[in-house]
Amino acid sequence: MTDWLDHIRWNQDGLIPAIAQDWQSGRVLMLAWMNREALALTLAENRAIYWSRSRGKLWRKGEESGHVQKLHELRLDCDADVLLLLVEQIGGIACHSGRESCFYRVQKDGQWQITDPVLKPAEAIYQQGHPHE
Amino acid sequence: MTDWLDHIRWNQDGLIPAIAQDWQSGRVLMLAWMNREALALTLAENRAIYWSRSRGKLWRKGEESGHVQKLHELRLDCDADVLLLLVEQIGGIACHSGRESCFYRVQKDGQWQITDPVLKPAEAIYQQGHPHE
Repeated sequence: MTDWLDHIRWNQDGLIPAIAQDWQSGRVLMLAWMNREALALTLAENRAIYWSRSRGKLWRKGEESGHVQKLHELRLDCDADVLLLLVEQIGGIACHSGRESCFYRVQKDGQWQITDPVLKPAEAIYQQGHPHE
Repeated sequence: MTDWLDHIRWNQDGLIPAIAQDWQSGRVLMLAWMNREALALTLAENRAIYWSRSRGKLWRKGEESGHVQKLHELRLDCDADVLLLLVEQIGGIACHSGRESCFYRVQKDGQWQITDPVLKPAEAIYQQGHPHE
């Protein structure tokens, strides 16, 4: 049954943006992109698997860091062109900077001010891998 | 002070995806797009103003429906290519379908199943306007 995949309105590059949200705290963790294969694998393996646009290949979130995102719920928006993943963020860190969320900067007084603490230094996260997933 | 606007990595169309999240419930409401002008106006007017890709013009969210999104906080992700808006959703309805959130469908058993109720019929929302903002 892959009819549900056919409902999606992929963009001109065959991708769809996917928002990852912590299923318990509600914190929005990150946004990445998926192609059809990534989405099918995400459901099959019950963990977030994205398409890395910079590296041009599948990105099994957590493959280097261990910060896997276990899938709890998969939602689609009214226009069928955005996904929302409710996830359990293993390690409590989604961002490669070692913060819980990638959205750690707030606009204030004409600047982007960092408001969120680093929970684990990037060097410690990626000591056996490369720094950018 | 517009330096903060220069930090943003706009895509090839000069746009950035913007996630709107209810600042109190944490519910992810929708994702839309902004160009530089829309983002500057969003901050200046303290309400979400998007760029409608389908209509090719600014979209003052709520201009037809009254379902304005008051801006409480504006966040930027680590790659500077996604925005997160914490908003107060006036009327409690973000979706043109009359639901709280545009993400009202859940993947289950190979299908997208509608899980969220219509709070107000679209006909009632847009009785004085056109059905699609």
